[in-house]
Amino acid sequence: MAESHAPRRAALRGLLRERGLDGLLVVDLLNIRYLTGFTGSNAALLLTADGDDTFCTDGRYTLQAQRQVPDMRHIIERASAPAVAAKASGRVGFESQHVTVDGLDTLADATDAELVRAPGLVEQLRVVKDETEVEALRMACAAADRALADLIEHGGLRPGRTEREVARELESRMLDHGAEAPSFDSIVAAGAHSAIPHHRPTDAVLHAGDLVKLDFGALVDGYHSDMTRTVVLGEPADWQRELYDLVAQAQAAGRAALAPGAEVTAVDAAARGVVERAGKGEHFPHGLGHGVGLQIHEAPSLAKTGGGTLAAGMAVTVEPGVYLPGMGGVRIEDTLVVRDAGPELLTLTTKQLMVV
Amino acid sequence: MAESHAPRRAALRGLLRERGLDGLLVVDLLNIRYLTGFTGSNAALLLTADGDDTFCTDGRYTLQAQRQVPDMRHIIERASAPAVAAKASGRVGFESQHVTVDGLDTLADATDAELVRAPGLVEQLRVVKDETEVEALRMACAAADRALADLIEHGGLRPGRTEREVARELESRMLDHGAEAPSFDSIVAAGAHSAIPHHRPTDAVLHAGDLVKLDFGALVDGYHSDMTRTVVLGEPADWQRELYDLVAQAQAAGRAALAPGAEVTAVDAAARGVVERAGKGEHFPHGLGHGVGLQIHEAPSLAKTGGGTLAAGMAVTVEPGVYLPGMGGVRIEDTLVVRDAGPELLTLTTKQLMVV
Repeated sequence: MAESHAPRRAALRGLLRERGLDGLLVVDLLNIRYLTGFTGSNAALLLTADGDDTFCTDGRYTLQAQRQVPDMRHIIERASAPAVAAKASGRVGFESQHVTVDGLDTLADATDAELVRAPGLVEQLRVVKDETEVEALRMACAAADRALADLIEHGGLRPGRTEREVARELESRMLDHGAEAPSFDSIVAAGAHSAIPHHRPTDAVLHAGDLVKLDFGALVDGYHSDMTRTVVLGEPADWQRELYDLVAQAQAAGRAALAPGAEVTAVDAAARGVVERAGKGEHFPHGLGHGVGLQIHEAPSLAKTGGGTLAAGMAVTVEPGVYLPGMGGVRIEDTLVVRDAGPELLTLTTKQLMVV
Repeated sequence: MAESHAPRRAALRGLLRERGLDGLLVVDLLNIRYLTGFTGSNAALLLTADGDDTFCTDGRYTLQAQRQVPDMRHIIERASAPAVAAKASGRVGFESQHVTVDGLDTLADATDAELVRAPGLVEQLRVVKDETEVEALRMACAAADRALADLIEHGGLRPGRTEREVARELESRMLDHGAEAPSFDSIVAAGAHSAIPHHRPTDAVLHAGDLVKLDFGALVDGYHSDMTRTVVLGEPADWQRELYDLVAQAQAAGRAALAPGAEVTAVDAAARGVVERAGKGEHFPHGLGHGVGLQIHEAPSLAKTGGGTLAAGMAVTVEPGVYLPGMGGVRIEDTLVVRDAGPELLTLTTKQLMVV
């Protein structure tokens, strides 16, 4: 991925010049990974408007840093943030949403530069994914798709198994398909549990006739996939099929609303309206979706309370859910990329009701 | 565990009174878990010197909070830290090592209280474990011990397997024995890789005659175990046996030095001296150990650069290692509790050289 980092740093330099900053102290490890490719657990970066950058990590990562960050000056020092701050001069931004109150003292003690708050600059770039990032998301989504297909094909979803067993098998199969790890704690929710939006897997047993909601994802190259499918164990009851069809319609409407320039509130409303017109609005208690990337939840938020518009290259989830307390719930979630020609679907598992 | 939290809060109130504070805003989720038992991902706590505490989480956790934190006032609000800050009055401490620069603005906007820096108060309590915590550590260590025994008994350590396969099986077997998760990314390092202190598992294959270093742990009730064993696949060569015996002697010396009142630097020196007298000091490049608990690395640090003395109830690792570049390395690590009557060993796997 090394070739993709220099353009990101160039874009950040553009933001620095717009704001009259001579540099930015970057301490958030995800932002550092985005700008350099470094994956270790201790680092700091001084990025300057004139391109004279400094990277710091500690002795555990000397060789790794040479390999992953070949194209700038390195310092090896355990206290990485003050070490790069010492190289700063002029008017230098710091990530005030990440630097702690005590941490700012340490930075100020280390430098003569004027430190000014500059929250969210790297995050502002990260919201639109480049093709290297989309490819990582694509692989992460494929690992999750394949794991679910394997799980079902090998009879992993059957009455008598526990939610916890299903979650473990799903996670293990994602590793088989190249995931570094699950991208978050998997949700497996059977029967009435499926009506709890963020249920954690228990030793509860799957029964014939249950709705089973599976919300899971894979981590590949640091990028997170996120998908939900809800299946029925055996023949669906009429209410289950109706509930499923409603959520599927809402989800399709949400996907169809993904376009550059669309207000995020309008995307939420497109899906929510379908549920509301069916008189079930109160049972859809969460937002429609969220950005995904180096974090499982990042900007933009597709919700009533969100703000701003979509742009080509944003990666988002679309995940309406309708939950009938005590009976069961259905959520259907994809990860997609906003494109000029219409959204690109990254999670490819069918959204037809699967009867397993 | 609910009965163990009130005494912890009482101890914290004592620290507040010592410092002339009317309260403490606690935002670190591990500190909140320690003080209340709450395990969700969003919370804040206002603990006051006079015992009028306020807990806040968001609507996802309403029921969970009622169950886990039955004994104080609750607020349900997404922005949890400012919500509890609004209830504060007088001279109130905040965790300046956790609160960000932007976060402090939000707190100050929400309250009329005088906010003063109070870093590390809860961490100061956490360094000495109560018996509820020791029991969680004991279970976490037992899960790891049993997983390693199973792995070896079922032939999981054999020539031809990859480091990654061994790591996955070890982690899976910890889950079988009650672990919520591995407590950190497992290290499995075969042959020359064993000479890299923090090697990540690769697709490299184990060979007959290899030293194989396994550094792993289990998470139980939020508490982290940490152990390392190094085995030989087949008959050990003389240099492997000598290296092993040296590290085992150093590790025994380190364990023997664990006593209330001992300087942490002296504990490190007790083990390091054994290695240095054998002329191998340069090949022991890291500290002797660290505290474990709700974090995998916490105070105290048993290292040359550490400070302070041990106290009964501290839980620490003792993990000397000697690494011969290109040949192989040996590390032996236990988790123990400092006790007046001598250290209590929590990781019970043999430290005899295992030839598998």
